[in-house]
Amino acid sequence: MTSALRQSGKERKMGKALIIGAGGVAGVVVHKCCQNSEVFTEICIASRTKSKCDALKKQVEEKGTKTKVTTAQVDADSVPQLVELINKEKPDIVINVALPYQDLTIMDACLETKTDYVDTANYEHPDTAKFEYKYQWAYREKFEKAGITALLGSGFDPGVTGVFCAYAQKHYFDEINYIDILDCNGGDHGYPFATNFNPEINIREVSAKGSYIEDGKWVETEPMEIKREYDFEQVGKKDMYLLHHEELESLALNIKGIKRIRFFMTFGQSYLTHLKCLENVGMTSIKPIMYEGREIVPLQFLKAVLPDPASLGPRTVGKTNIGCICIGKKDGKEVHYKVYNCCDHQECYKEVGSQAISYTTGVPAMIGAMMVMTGKWKKPGVYNIEEFDPDPFMDALNKWGLPWHETFDPELVD
Amino acid sequence: MTSALRQSGKERKMGKALIIGAGGVAGVVVHKCCQNSEVFTEICIASRTKSKCDALKKQVEEKGTKTKVTTAQVDADSVPQLVELINKEKPDIVINVALPYQDLTIMDACLETKTDYVDTANYEHPDTAKFEYKYQWAYREKFEKAGITALLGSGFDPGVTGVFCAYAQKHYFDEINYIDILDCNGGDHGYPFATNFNPEINIREVSAKGSYIEDGKWVETEPMEIKREYDFEQVGKKDMYLLHHEELESLALNIKGIKRIRFFMTFGQSYLTHLKCLENVGMTSIKPIMYEGREIVPLQFLKAVLPDPASLGPRTVGKTNIGCICIGKKDGKEVHYKVYNCCDHQECYKEVGSQAISYTTGVPAMIGAMMVMTGKWKKPGVYNIEEFDPDPFMDALNKWGLPWHETFDPELVD
Repeated sequence: MTSALRQSGKERKMGKALIIGAGGVAGVVVHKCCQNSEVFTEICIASRTKSKCDALKKQVEEKGTKTKVTTAQVDADSVPQLVELINKEKPDIVINVALPYQDLTIMDACLETKTDYVDTANYEHPDTAKFEYKYQWAYREKFEKAGITALLGSGFDPGVTGVFCAYAQKHYFDEINYIDILDCNGGDHGYPFATNFNPEINIREVSAKGSYIEDGKWVETEPMEIKREYDFEQVGKKDMYLLHHEELESLALNIKGIKRIRFFMTFGQSYLTHLKCLENVGMTSIKPIMYEGREIVPLQFLKAVLPDPASLGPRTVGKTNIGCICIGKKDGKEVHYKVYNCCDHQECYKEVGSQAISYTTGVPAMIGAMMVMTGKWKKPGVYNIEEFDPDPFMDALNKWGLPWHETFDPELVD
Repeated sequence: MTSALRQSGKERKMGKALIIGAGGVAGVVVHKCCQNSEVFTEICIASRTKSKCDALKKQVEEKGTKTKVTTAQVDADSVPQLVELINKEKPDIVINVALPYQDLTIMDACLETKTDYVDTANYEHPDTAKFEYKYQWAYREKFEKAGITALLGSGFDPGVTGVFCAYAQKHYFDEINYIDILDCNGGDHGYPFATNFNPEINIREVSAKGSYIEDGKWVETEPMEIKREYDFEQVGKKDMYLLHHEELESLALNIKGIKRIRFFMTFGQSYLTHLKCLENVGMTSIKPIMYEGREIVPLQFLKAVLPDPASLGPRTVGKTNIGCICIGKKDGKEVHYKVYNCCDHQECYKEVGSQAISYTTGVPAMIGAMMVMTGKWKKPGVYNIEEFDPDPFMDALNKWGLPWHETFDPELVD
């Protein structure tokens, strides 16, 4: 029984979310929950640095939100601290938009307090840079027994891309044989080089081997080996590269008939050249060097020299275009289907003070939490997003800022 | 009257040099003076860090030099300290291989103590990055009145390139109308990026506007605007770029008949790309940033991350090729002439523990000092190298490690 049901009364119709994290994505989640105060009557924002939470609270209160907002300090690496906070705040759901390293401690705390859970990226061990669901899937039985729901990967990719595939499967296909997921950021911040978020994560993506699933098996490529040009709706032609991406693992299992599923992301040549040069000279190293008598990590110093990611918001123009191309069969006939969203950096910034990269991740996190809190996706256990009925989520995307488009004549990437 | 003449006696036939500086070039000068102990019976090595001077002294003494070597500490920015040192050491000549910022203080100290002077690069104000002779040419009258010689720019370029032009003029031309000076470093240290010396100087060269002299006037180009490929003897084809270089200014005045004089230097595409990327992200900035509560200059931190230039010596392979192409007239007929030196990085390292960049600068500094000390180039005043008889210098190049080659069919760079 959720606290919303426990506390029936006029002023408290729906429920309370505990949002853990106070970075760019968390900011969007806070703004969107506060726009949606019929569902989120109350939120608590908690992170290691309480002042960041207070700043977010101030932003949404100045916009006149009807949601009651509180803040708290918490170390998300500490299960006891998390349990104490959840017991004090009594949220209906925890929205984890902290670091992927902290997924397991937060899931442990949710188990102990029997609280629903949603996140946007799968658990990653800080030292291994392996993106795998096995650590979180191992919680399935425990969550079932506790009668609580964990919704994994409710960002854009993973997240909306999984909903898109589930929607395609439900409405247009008997089986989907081929899926290409395309993630294009056509935004321009005007700097020769800057990162939208932690450069370390960028570098891991670019320097890691690529991979895709074919006939049930992972096929590995050299880093950035497969490069294609693609003409994106509302953006234009961009170079994109085949990367490993976490949703391939769950979609290959949950979508019927998959023969091959791949993921491509756009990178500009200038971005890649700068990253490679910085790597070559040792500026992206995480091994400290001695500088004037003390240890400094080159990557940390580089971050300090680069523009603050938060400063990119006001100056980034252009759009993102992220979607899925599905090829399969319906009633014995071949079907081609594409579904995608385009998101404008400047419009996002006007609405919530963040560019589209944070926006496209934060909005689905709010929607996923809403799906669970409203009971539409309430089911004990640990689930990937494509395992639920996509229709209410697809409706919510249109309503909450990420409208989607479909076409019925796409081709796969060649 | 030099101290060599003052102190006649068996054990002291020639003279004493005070070498100011203890970097890569200074190391070569020390080694070459100590190989030439009939001329350099005594040297004193002085720099801000005496331990570096002591290390050089140890190297040449272990090789069994007959030259007497002493060391001293001096701040070359301080005229009083320099005067005190010169009065104590009583050298016949000061060889300035410190920083170009220190040319004027060292010249002032030479004037005050009536001591001959030689350097390898013209004075540069730390803040302006303007390479001009006017500051040093302003000392002409003072040096004449003091009866002492200042030999400016006795490195390779400026230096040997000026001697090459004077030699061409003396032996092969009535007038030289066109000169192209080509500086090629075909060395490979195996790193994606590293600098042979201070990256700040490299960056200034590459980011400054190019220029050359035509019909007595400077013609300016955009930075790196003029790019040519050239097939260098013993090296092969390399990209080279038109740069401003200081010897153009004096050669245009001292060589008869000049219509156009240009300077080209090779840079690899990888080197330029890395430098540009580092500049773009702000890593080459000399403006401090705040990092964990204290100021750090990005360029200084970059230097600490990059390979130590001294560590490049043992691993650099390949050759340099630096020379001059002259086109002019003799007895009414057109004459084509090229003179150049090739220098092997590994052979230099075996001989003096430095790669060819330091070697090709240090050897001519020793030879220039020898020219003045032996009286061959002794003439009160301030002179550029092409103003003296080139023949004894050309002989010395062959004897002391920089043999040269001539051809009579070159074409100018197109």
